[in-house]
Amino acid sequence: MGLYLHDIPLSQARETFRNGLNQYGLNEPLQAELIPIDENAVARILANPVWAKISSPHYNASAMDGFAFFAKKSESAMVTNPVTLRIPEEAVYLDTGDVLPDWANCVVAIENTEALDENGKICGNVRNPYMIRIRASLPPFTNVRPIGEDIIATELVLPVGRFLRPVDLGAAAASGHTHLSVFRQPVVVILPTGSELVEIGKEVEPGEIIEYNSVVLGAQALEWGAKVLRFPITRDDFEQICQKVGEAAEIADLILLNAGSSAGAEDFSSRVVETLGELYVHGIAIRPGHPVILGMIHAKNNRHVPIIGVPGFPVSSAMTGELFVKPLIRLWCGYDSANDETIDAFITKKITSPAGDDDYIRVVAAKISDRYLAAPLSRGAGVITSLVRADGYTVVPRGIQGLDVGEKIRIFLNKPRNEIENTIMVIGSHDLTIDLLAEYLAKRKRRLVSANVGSLGGLISLQRKESHMAGSHLLNPENGTYNFTYIRKYLTSFGVDVDVINWVYREQGLIVQTGNPKRITTLADLGREDVEFVNRQRGAGTRILLDFHLEEIGLSVENVHGYEHEEFTHLAVGASVSSGRADVGLGIASAAKALGLDFIPLFKERYDFVISTEYSHTDLLLPFYEAMMDESFRASVQALGGYDVSSMGKQIVE
Amino acid sequence: MGLYLHDIPLSQARETFRNGLNQYGLNEPLQAELIPIDENAVARILANPVWAKISSPHYNASAMDGFAFFAKKSESAMVTNPVTLRIPEEAVYLDTGDVLPDWANCVVAIENTEALDENGKICGNVRNPYMIRIRASLPPFTNVRPIGEDIIATELVLPVGRFLRPVDLGAAAASGHTHLSVFRQPVVVILPTGSELVEIGKEVEPGEIIEYNSVVLGAQALEWGAKVLRFPITRDDFEQICQKVGEAAEIADLILLNAGSSAGAEDFSSRVVETLGELYVHGIAIRPGHPVILGMIHAKNNRHVPIIGVPGFPVSSAMTGELFVKPLIRLWCGYDSANDETIDAFITKKITSPAGDDDYIRVVAAKISDRYLAAPLSRGAGVITSLVRADGYTVVPRGIQGLDVGEKIRIFLNKPRNEIENTIMVIGSHDLTIDLLAEYLAKRKRRLVSANVGSLGGLISLQRKESHMAGSHLLNPENGTYNFTYIRKYLTSFGVDVDVINWVYREQGLIVQTGNPKRITTLADLGREDVEFVNRQRGAGTRILLDFHLEEIGLSVENVHGYEHEEFTHLAVGASVSSGRADVGLGIASAAKALGLDFIPLFKERYDFVISTEYSHTDLLLPFYEAMMDESFRASVQALGGYDVSSMGKQIVE
Repeated sequence: MGLYLHDIPLSQARETFRNGLNQYGLNEPLQAELIPIDENAVARILANPVWAKISSPHYNASAMDGFAFFAKKSESAMVTNPVTLRIPEEAVYLDTGDVLPDWANCVVAIENTEALDENGKICGNVRNPYMIRIRASLPPFTNVRPIGEDIIATELVLPVGRFLRPVDLGAAAASGHTHLSVFRQPVVVILPTGSELVEIGKEVEPGEIIEYNSVVLGAQALEWGAKVLRFPITRDDFEQICQKVGEAAEIADLILLNAGSSAGAEDFSSRVVETLGELYVHGIAIRPGHPVILGMIHAKNNRHVPIIGVPGFPVSSAMTGELFVKPLIRLWCGYDSANDETIDAFITKKITSPAGDDDYIRVVAAKISDRYLAAPLSRGAGVITSLVRADGYTVVPRGIQGLDVGEKIRIFLNKPRNEIENTIMVIGSHDLTIDLLAEYLAKRKRRLVSANVGSLGGLISLQRKESHMAGSHLLNPENGTYNFTYIRKYLTSFGVDVDVINWVYREQGLIVQTGNPKRITTLADLGREDVEFVNRQRGAGTRILLDFHLEEIGLSVENVHGYEHEEFTHLAVGASVSSGRADVGLGIASAAKALGLDFIPLFKERYDFVISTEYSHTDLLLPFYEAMMDESFRASVQALGGYDVSSMGKQIVE
Repeated sequence: MGLYLHDIPLSQARETFRNGLNQYGLNEPLQAELIPIDENAVARILANPVWAKISSPHYNASAMDGFAFFAKKSESAMVTNPVTLRIPEEAVYLDTGDVLPDWANCVVAIENTEALDENGKICGNVRNPYMIRIRASLPPFTNVRPIGEDIIATELVLPVGRFLRPVDLGAAAASGHTHLSVFRQPVVVILPTGSELVEIGKEVEPGEIIEYNSVVLGAQALEWGAKVLRFPITRDDFEQICQKVGEAAEIADLILLNAGSSAGAEDFSSRVVETLGELYVHGIAIRPGHPVILGMIHAKNNRHVPIIGVPGFPVSSAMTGELFVKPLIRLWCGYDSANDETIDAFITKKITSPAGDDDYIRVVAAKISDRYLAAPLSRGAGVITSLVRADGYTVVPRGIQGLDVGEKIRIFLNKPRNEIENTIMVIGSHDLTIDLLAEYLAKRKRRLVSANVGSLGGLISLQRKESHMAGSHLLNPENGTYNFTYIRKYLTSFGVDVDVINWVYREQGLIVQTGNPKRITTLADLGREDVEFVNRQRGAGTRILLDFHLEEIGLSVENVHGYEHEEFTHLAVGASVSSGRADVGLGIASAAKALGLDFIPLFKERYDFVISTEYSHTDLLLPFYEAMMDESFRASVQALGGYDVSSMGKQIVE
């Protein structure tokens, strides 16, 4: 940590950077440019207001297909007492939008006229007859769109700063404009560096890393309104990086130098910035994303180009995008970020934060019992899936050491609120079939968000109204029943009524390496000196199952190597075995099958969904009930291996 | 109306169209295509799920810059009892992300090591010393990112139907993918037709119409995910239109034929469709936008291409986009429209609807006292500014003749909810300075929405909690005071407390044509036979002022020609005079000045803002108070002409 040049608070870093930008006149929207009014103008920002040059309509226009005439002439017209008008002396045919003649002040719709020939007989030439007959009187200006009905010349049509939508372009054109003055889009050059990096599509060896940060940063910058240029990977070579940064500076408005911004052996970024310009900041007290660099490059062609050294970990990289790149692009493009969506939500899990850092925490959100809830996601800087799953982020400011369960936080959303409100929150025991259910629901306008906290954790989440339903397979060893003992204790006694619906019966057993090199066959083998076990976390149904059976065979947990090594899902247990960190774990058949591992079946257990009766018959959960009745869905569950779906959807009563 | 081939309900039209699409296999997402993972993949929709091909990390990786070793070797390490490890036999230096050797299972951060030379002395070669000393014991897997920490091979990374965001691209790349399978984007060809149309940028004559529907439709289609091709304007010529439609059909997935879809003299669209393919629907019972055509073109190259005949009025055109083009593009692209934002709101104005039509009504929305409120906008099919102002629309279904004030409606939003929640609703008397205030607020993250219903209507909106503040200049003729008489009657007696803040003093007078051809000089001239007057609506302060002074001079309203001709704003009164519909109106100086009309000043009056005390000291209104104290803002008000700002911001007490 102490190796960074600076390790300063976010606010100070921002101010330092802003001062640098100010010095070169870069802390304001880019110069305006004139662009023609066409579909590509959409989503640009107006640099100057649009005042109407002409009125719309710009003449008195017919609002109907029909005949124009002077209204007074119809004064006496009645059904029984028609009035006749000669063409073209007293009336003329107009299509919708045609100019009203000076002497006319109303239009009668063609379907309300009778076309007559020179003998006063009804004729077929309805648009150009000799005369017409009308049977009702019309007030002046009937079916006329007067000048300026829509837009009056001199009026403000679109204010400065307007985010241009399709209809805005129409209004600007209607009021006499051909071009719009919008802020220029910045050019962002992204420069990935690192000898360990390989381009997407190349075969990767251990130690090599697929370079995708530049794609994420590029896509972000594009979304925020910039033009994007990605350079190929430069290897860790000071001279080469200098050269590339120099090239970029001649064309870019902003340079993103990815990785090489910490203080490891091959981290050149700060030296490059110092060599080619000014280094403002190196290292910011935020999490994730410490080693951010902020500086200014002075290009050979006399341009001054801000540079951001982006950390290499994908979450840090994307968050640096959010925190530094987004505000700059938005500022330059003239965007108003006032309308970025935020919600206030209650946090479902305790968070501890380092007191000295602003801590940016990704969350997933749902609406339960009229409150928004937010569950914090994995906080590792390398875990890109936490970004994939995130609905937004919250900030624990420096000086605050964390947040308690139930505290109210502000979430900066990156998804529409309706998506959050269509979310079914499933908290509890992990099972691979939940992914299948998520797929099924996604096609039916529901999003399933699951958190794997074990069966017991799931019941407690229902008690706290933090989930809609919980997957649970809690064995009561004393009588061999599932779930109800725990439901009484953790839900009924708290006044929470639930339905219990069977999901599957599933096989639990030992997940071992392919070919079972350690020749593990029974639970008793977990006591062997040469066997490394991987466990599930406390409160997991599988952990309770294990403890029950270990006690049954008289094997003390102190004698199980790796008993303290906890993972949160069956797949994570499998991955531990697969990577060689462990030889064996207790888990479900489908996890072993998915990872190509061997499986020794031991037990068959019931896995239910416990559902708050508050939601069990709501529209939100309807597609979940449909899934259980859907033959092809059941078949897809069975195909995972080790599942019995014959009771799926059956309500279980004690 | 009876001239349309059909005039059928929306649901029936949709079904007929769907059947036609089904017949040619077009009622489903377009074929998937493989695209490389780069920034252009953003906002595309996954046609196939992404399952992890490889784990991420795909090897056990160092999570720190530091030394890897076997954890057990540090078991005895303490501050006072360091452990020494030889390089490279017992420990090796790794950068973050480097591969952990087989024989190591943890990493100590470089800053927690002491580098030693061969004599056991501290040395400067911190990354490649002879040995290192550590003073704390490390558990296994400390500072190691194990295989699959982020993504486990075989795991579902992104579900089918996923709207791709920047971080999703990173996750797909990290899990071993180079390409993504997404639904192909449709090509939409837009064909504007009409001899009266002129391209944007050409000088317009009376009777000519600036062709901008194609730009709005094109921008809409682009936003919804299509590729767009706009053809030049084709004039009203059956053969030419046939030829262009034929050309379009060879390349398009959807043809939008704009205008020519009603049954006027030069409306060829339905004949063209019948000639080149099948006409499914002509005329739908919706408002606005009756004469929609739905059909299928059979191209020379054997393609079957749906065609939509879009009505010419801009609002109808854009609504046809929303109702028919959007769902089709979304379906083809694989979008899930479940997350389109909707809110439930209370309507602030009675709406009457034709019982036989589905009525689409544009609204503007705000949040007041924790409820969303929606005010219906102008319903004319030609009024594109109603679309510019709209936050979304609501539907009054056929069979329902309208909605009462206070009824709950569902709004389909086209703006973020936060924009709606940052809205200051100003309902009441019209004044040109309100536009200036809106500009000022827009730069300060507030949106001002105003409705011009007259001073009295403004007070009633405050009573009903439908606005935050109201512009008011209600004279009590009996004592010459402003506003308080009415506030007592309409607010205080209903338990609504308000603050009254002076805005301006302004000049009211006669707005007459340039050069004053009718030589109007006093209010008495309104009684002349040759003078046509334009009035303000009932409840407008200006109307009350007029009535008071007419009575004073003994001129009966029956003797004022045009007294029944009502307009809702000063500018609209001015536009009436400007267009020749009227000779004179009573209004404010700035409206005359804006339109280049002559003005005969008569009275000076006080114009206040009446503000619910519930909001007067809220964050929402803060920038409004700032505006009144801002010298440059005051100057911009004065520049409009006829305003005295010396009391602006002063609280008025009775």
